[in-house]
Amino acid sequence: MFQRILVANRGEIALRVIRACKELGVEVVAVYSQADRDAPYLELADRAICIGKAPSVDSYLNIPRLIAAAEVADVQAIHPGYGFLSENPQFAEICRSCNFEFIGPPHEAIRKMGLKTEAKAIAAEAKVACVPGSDGAVADDAEALRLARAIGFPVLIKAAAGGGGKGMRVCRDESSLAGALQMARNEASAAFKNPSVYLEKFIDRPRHVEIQILADAHGNVVHCWDRDCSLQRRHQKLVEEATASTLPDSVRAKIGEAAVRLAKTVGYVNAGTCEFLVDPDDNFYFIEVNARIQVEHPVTEMVTGIDLVQQQIRIAAGEPLPFRQQDIVTRGHAFECRINSEDPDNDFRPSPGRITALKIPGGPGVRWDSHAQAGYTVPPNYDSLVGKLIVHGATRDAAAARMRRALDELVIEGVKTTIPLHQRVFRNPDFLAGRVDTTWVERVLMPSSAGRQAQPA
Amino acid sequence: MFQRILVANRGEIALRVIRACKELGVEVVAVYSQADRDAPYLELADRAICIGKAPSVDSYLNIPRLIAAAEVADVQAIHPGYGFLSENPQFAEICRSCNFEFIGPPHEAIRKMGLKTEAKAIAAEAKVACVPGSDGAVADDAEALRLARAIGFPVLIKAAAGGGGKGMRVCRDESSLAGALQMARNEASAAFKNPSVYLEKFIDRPRHVEIQILADAHGNVVHCWDRDCSLQRRHQKLVEEATASTLPDSVRAKIGEAAVRLAKTVGYVNAGTCEFLVDPDDNFYFIEVNARIQVEHPVTEMVTGIDLVQQQIRIAAGEPLPFRQQDIVTRGHAFECRINSEDPDNDFRPSPGRITALKIPGGPGVRWDSHAQAGYTVPPNYDSLVGKLIVHGATRDAAAARMRRALDELVIEGVKTTIPLHQRVFRNPDFLAGRVDTTWVERVLMPSSAGRQAQPA
Repeated sequence: MFQRILVANRGEIALRVIRACKELGVEVVAVYSQADRDAPYLELADRAICIGKAPSVDSYLNIPRLIAAAEVADVQAIHPGYGFLSENPQFAEICRSCNFEFIGPPHEAIRKMGLKTEAKAIAAEAKVACVPGSDGAVADDAEALRLARAIGFPVLIKAAAGGGGKGMRVCRDESSLAGALQMARNEASAAFKNPSVYLEKFIDRPRHVEIQILADAHGNVVHCWDRDCSLQRRHQKLVEEATASTLPDSVRAKIGEAAVRLAKTVGYVNAGTCEFLVDPDDNFYFIEVNARIQVEHPVTEMVTGIDLVQQQIRIAAGEPLPFRQQDIVTRGHAFECRINSEDPDNDFRPSPGRITALKIPGGPGVRWDSHAQAGYTVPPNYDSLVGKLIVHGATRDAAAARMRRALDELVIEGVKTTIPLHQRVFRNPDFLAGRVDTTWVERVLMPSSAGRQAQPA
Repeated sequence: MFQRILVANRGEIALRVIRACKELGVEVVAVYSQADRDAPYLELADRAICIGKAPSVDSYLNIPRLIAAAEVADVQAIHPGYGFLSENPQFAEICRSCNFEFIGPPHEAIRKMGLKTEAKAIAAEAKVACVPGSDGAVADDAEALRLARAIGFPVLIKAAAGGGGKGMRVCRDESSLAGALQMARNEASAAFKNPSVYLEKFIDRPRHVEIQILADAHGNVVHCWDRDCSLQRRHQKLVEEATASTLPDSVRAKIGEAAVRLAKTVGYVNAGTCEFLVDPDDNFYFIEVNARIQVEHPVTEMVTGIDLVQQQIRIAAGEPLPFRQQDIVTRGHAFECRINSEDPDNDFRPSPGRITALKIPGGPGVRWDSHAQAGYTVPPNYDSLVGKLIVHGATRDAAAARMRRALDELVIEGVKTTIPLHQRVFRNPDFLAGRVDTTWVERVLMPSSAGRQAQPA
């Protein structure tokens, strides 16, 4: 096992890694930007090193400074957390070339999975379905029609150069295809100065289901079952749960196996997540791999009893997985609410500032992962996550009741938070019945919040 | 299910019951003495009623005032918590005669189990071994010798009228019996004006193992496995764990079955605990039944996933148990540290006062059950429990590492606490290896704290 690890991150995930190191008996070195110098979790590290100014490019995204801190602190390994440099293959490669173990996958796997065409080829090799579509831009209306017939209507027309919903059109039948293509091309032209569009099968009201993977350096790959993260607003997850309650057990097992095949095909090592869209008929389509620990990893920890961050560190230290697939069983149900310092009544505008009062929920089945304390000032420089409230219960209903109770106990004063939004979610009959999809928040819960960026899928 | 429940208790267990009610969708009425009027958990109840002055006889032990509060609040049931009136059969009987369901066992079962001779007779009927001994005082030295031979040396000589270790002598062989009897009689005479003594088998360095029972009103009785509560000082538990790590699985199953037989024999209903002494050869002897929820119930909740307080309420409402014995499986290991506002360096003297700062540990596998908040004043009137820190880990070692980490995160300022004692326990090689017994704290960890009341068993 390593003697000393550096955490190349901040906030709750830095604290999460610090806790894992403490429990493993590994010394832990934190880094911080000037904006984070008073962050209370730094006291829990064995050492804390300032790596620069508040802007991330000067600190948490600054590879030379992170490497220098690792040199100075004489660590053997670097944990990247999530966000920042966690999925940057160059950072992983530099860490290893400087003889620091990177606590994450091989840089080759990160790089391949980060390229859409490579990822699709790997999925094909692993016999995992992606969302069917054209290979790149369609040449003309005739090719589009031929492809659309092959894929099956409805289809989604997307700007080849674009993103953010612009140049995107749903087309439900042949008769409207030519018109839809023209509109999409016009929008794409205006937005991206490039009228090229491509086609994809339109999955109506999909659920977002993802599989947690653990792979050691000895060829053992297991999945830790599934999470449903369909509650999203502008592609930002709000609430996550494990397991995906609406998934039939037969499909659950198949998605898990598909994820393991993908990981094996790409030579994946360490923790990772395979993300899928699931249509209302429970067909699943691979979207992408998140080659890091995820914000929502605690729900999987709650139902499996596995400490994923400790496993990441053990895997990086060369230990074989201590369990086989059949040892990984889920118990009960878990939810996570992301508590952000944002104003849900004002377009989720960030609400940084000083937390003047904080009451943390406790009691059975309640977990609070947060770097915040009363008196802590949420800096305006970074994402607005101030804490993750996670609950576990014997059933989904029991866990939901527990989350309602815990949300009602949680008090954060001084900044606006998303607590009221979560209180609405956990009292909503659709949500409680599991009748949600990735469009639900913007379509049903708060249609006024969808704004111009609302997307069909 | 009940519409409304009254909690006839205070502090952390009152909050625990409030949380269970909230999750069950049941309204909950708290009561408080004048000393507790500013207790923060009262805000979480749907209603809070003052029942009198600070002395418990004027409030938490005052049956007429509790019944009056229940009448005023129009509740259907009363939860007694632990301590105070929880094992008072008269209170249980009065509750029911006033048409309030008592969330606990039938008063007949409480009464029988509270009488030593009755409890022994029930154990005999259930074919569960008690500590062998004389039936009452021994007439003379000759009878004592005959009995001692039958029981087997070493034997314990105890004052019939006494308690607290006075008039108690361990006798290890026949040759020293007459002298030991004489000394015990002399001490008993001096202390209690009654020289009568009785004999019991002396169990050297026993472990305290207890079985959690759940019994519904339809004749279903299950056990939720075992806890080890050997870490005691002057018979006060300091640290509890589930399951009892040193117990062979075959013995664990047998103790569980014995506890279920005991509960069935006495017609037990609701949650309860059968306490046993286990000798170094894993022979177990029934001591007593605790006819209530216990302080240490969370460690069982952590390993079984069962919410014991919710089950208490469901059982009292007439629901059948939702599981069978074979459904109750343990996962991992759990510890609880009782955090008391006491000064472990000053003979555990109570340290009431205002909590000026409080940092609560979080992260995976950590549970904090406490009525305290920063700014809360621990009143001098009641027991000194300010919180229970509970952790769960995949193994006993992992759970112990987690407890060390969580204890290091826990900060309570303004009052002295037992946190430093627990930090010592969780760094002690004997404890970490499970080499402890009920004498260990006073014999090994802090012999100076044993004082005059040290007891051989």
